Amino acid sequence: MKKDNKKFSDQIAPLRDEIDSIDSRILSLLARRQAQVEKVVALKKIHSIPVYHPAREEDLISRLRLQSQSHGLDPDFMEDLYRVILRQSRVKQTQKMEHKGVKPNARVLVIGGAGQMGALFADLFTKSGYEVRILTEQDWDHAPSLCRNIDLALVSVPIEKTLQVIEKITPLLPPGAVLADLTSVKKEPVAKMLSAHKGPVLGVHPLFGPTLSCLDKQIIVVTPGRDGTACEWFTEQLSLWGAVIVESTPGEHDEIMEIVQALRHFATFCFGEFLCNRQAKLERTLEFSSPIYRLELGMVGRLFAQDSALYAQIIFATPERRALLKEFILSLGRHIEMLESNDKQLFIDQFNHVAQWFGPFSDQAMRESTFLIDKLIERF
Amino acid sequence: MKKDNKKFSDQIAPLRDEIDSIDSRILSLLARRQAQVEKVVALKKIHSIPVYHPAREEDLISRLRLQSQSHGLDPDFMEDLYRVILRQSRVKQTQKMEHKGVKPNARVLVIGGAGQMGALFADLFTKSGYEVRILTEQDWDHAPSLCRNIDLALVSVPIEKTLQVIEKITPLLPPGAVLADLTSVKKEPVAKMLSAHKGPVLGVHPLFGPTLSCLDKQIIVVTPGRDGTACEWFTEQLSLWGAVIVESTPGEHDEIMEIVQALRHFATFCFGEFLCNRQAKLERTLEFSSPIYRLELGMVGRLFAQDSALYAQIIFATPERRALLKEFILSLGRHIEMLESNDKQLFIDQFNHVAQWFGPFSDQAMRESTFLIDKLIERF
Repeated sequence: MKKDNKKFSDQIAPLRDEIDSIDSRILSLLARRQAQVEKVVALKKIHSIPVYHPAREEDLISRLRLQSQSHGLDPDFMEDLYRVILRQSRVKQTQKMEHKGVKPNARVLVIGGAGQMGALFADLFTKSGYEVRILTEQDWDHAPSLCRNIDLALVSVPIEKTLQVIEKITPLLPPGAVLADLTSVKKEPVAKMLSAHKGPVLGVHPLFGPTLSCLDKQIIVVTPGRDGTACEWFTEQLSLWGAVIVESTPGEHDEIMEIVQALRHFATFCFGEFLCNRQAKLERTLEFSSPIYRLELGMVGRLFAQDSALYAQIIFATPERRALLKEFILSLGRHIEMLESNDKQLFIDQFNHVAQWFGPFSDQAMRESTFLIDKLIERF
Repeated sequence: MKKDNKKFSDQIAPLRDEIDSIDSRILSLLARRQAQVEKVVALKKIHSIPVYHPAREEDLISRLRLQSQSHGLDPDFMEDLYRVILRQSRVKQTQKMEHKGVKPNARVLVIGGAGQMGALFADLFTKSGYEVRILTEQDWDHAPSLCRNIDLALVSVPIEKTLQVIEKITPLLPPGAVLADLTSVKKEPVAKMLSAHKGPVLGVHPLFGPTLSCLDKQIIVVTPGRDGTACEWFTEQLSLWGAVIVESTPGEHDEIMEIVQALRHFATFCFGEFLCNRQAKLERTLEFSSPIYRLELGMVGRLFAQDSALYAQIIFATPERRALLKEFILSLGRHIEMLESNDKQLFIDQFNHVAQWFGPFSDQAMRESTFLIDKLIERF
């Protein structure tokens, strides 16, 4: 057996050396590729051409898929690989491009700029060549001078302070300044901004946490209030930072957020709380689980890794939200009878009804989540 | 402007050509890498060495991370890329290795081998050189001859038929044959197998659906019943197919599955059903959403893309499960007062309590899910 092992080592060593040498050559080529991409970025910058060129990316992928086949490589594998390479190239390009200012030297006041989200935006504006001023709770004495000549006042304070801060800041604003807020509800703040300020008004809701380093493909909802033309440079700047802008009305925004934020997080909270009260053996359940359970439990764990006060704010934000959550709990109560009577057929009927309603989204979800599960298996 | 565009095209063309040529060279190297890996597999096969060599993979990743830095490449990017390459290499190797039989030519009877899960196992056994026989519902007349001289009888029938099928088949089995089942509950089936059959007994629960093409890293729970030594070749075969074997008792298995399967799927069902009853505008909520919401809604959609009868079976499997689900619904009812009294502090206290209980898992979940969200952004 030992002799056999020795023979195996002798035979495998040159193969592994060859693989290592191939890997080194791939690495050098990737470095050269990156250098070429940097030249492309420099050119794009000179000619003000957008970074992301979906058609070129798809062309490249299609071509590589074809080439793979003739080389005996799996085209899906090749696509996976190049999605990673292209994303890296896009991130690098965006990092270089995002500093470009649409209205450089404009004066931006971030109210609550010491908070995490305020700080993120203050940083982005600064890097893009704006003059950024920060107003914190302790600084209200200097508010009049901070507001002088500003082009944009951005309110980034906790949700329960938004209305009073808007009221307090507006008398100090130049009439032509854009007034915008980053609150996660829009009806009340936008109404308040419109009544308190006579100039341009824009509601903004960034759908991401403040821990991002790059806005690439992140979504920002904007709900126009007044004088859209005067606000344009600001939304353009958000796009240039890589964000995807979705336009809505304050009413529609709030209704959708009831589901996207409040209901979803509350349902996750309830699930986690039940596991905790049952003292479920988390570690052991993970050993017993398919990757998809790991992913689903991960979604629950993820919630509880975050700030409880923030989630209390989100969940309890409006009476409409609290009513929706009550309705959700009551809807679950209706299932008790089905469980007690062991009525599988009722479950199947309801399930099929919901499946029909979800329609093509289900299959798409199946594909997307299967893709992710593969990624999860790959990594962990 | 037109002139400027022309100039840009002229300047960018050679850069893009160079990138395309680099990509072609990378592709050739990957094909050569694959050829080398195939030689390694052939060698491993001869020497019966396992495919997956975690230490070598981690060495390789560490080395490439170091090399990336000296080439000005992001080490995380390089690691991402090589995880894709190594997974592909592992899948290819496993596909070649998994056919190896631990006890080739042994006779395996798959009862319910026409069902999806039974067919998957019948296929795996066949590819590994076993003599596979299939017993379907229509075939019971031939059961005695199908059972003759078999080494393993694998019961793969719907959960509600398991007990009666075990009862029906055992009188026909050779006393030394291994009797195993693939049911998703274990207490009753294993007890029934032990009382009906005098030979080796093994409970098996594959924690995956029947649509897989490869068992790589998939989990299979086994609950030993009797004569573990006689069952060993079967569990070894499962490992060789790439599965991870977790051992448990029928009681522990069922308790954990109440949470991992019943509770989780039921909670998802409730969420989907509520969205459907509210006629929530799914498409629009997705436009308004961060990638993580897309992922979470995808988990819900994924459920409804699957077989309602299967989920009814899973959820209603035992009285214990139904009691647990009732308890879950009742636990939610307790939150109504908190919502009605707008008691944010109570929510924060409960949230923090649960967060503490989740402990380090939360941070890990945060890291893992952030990784996946990046993958999701990359792809879609």
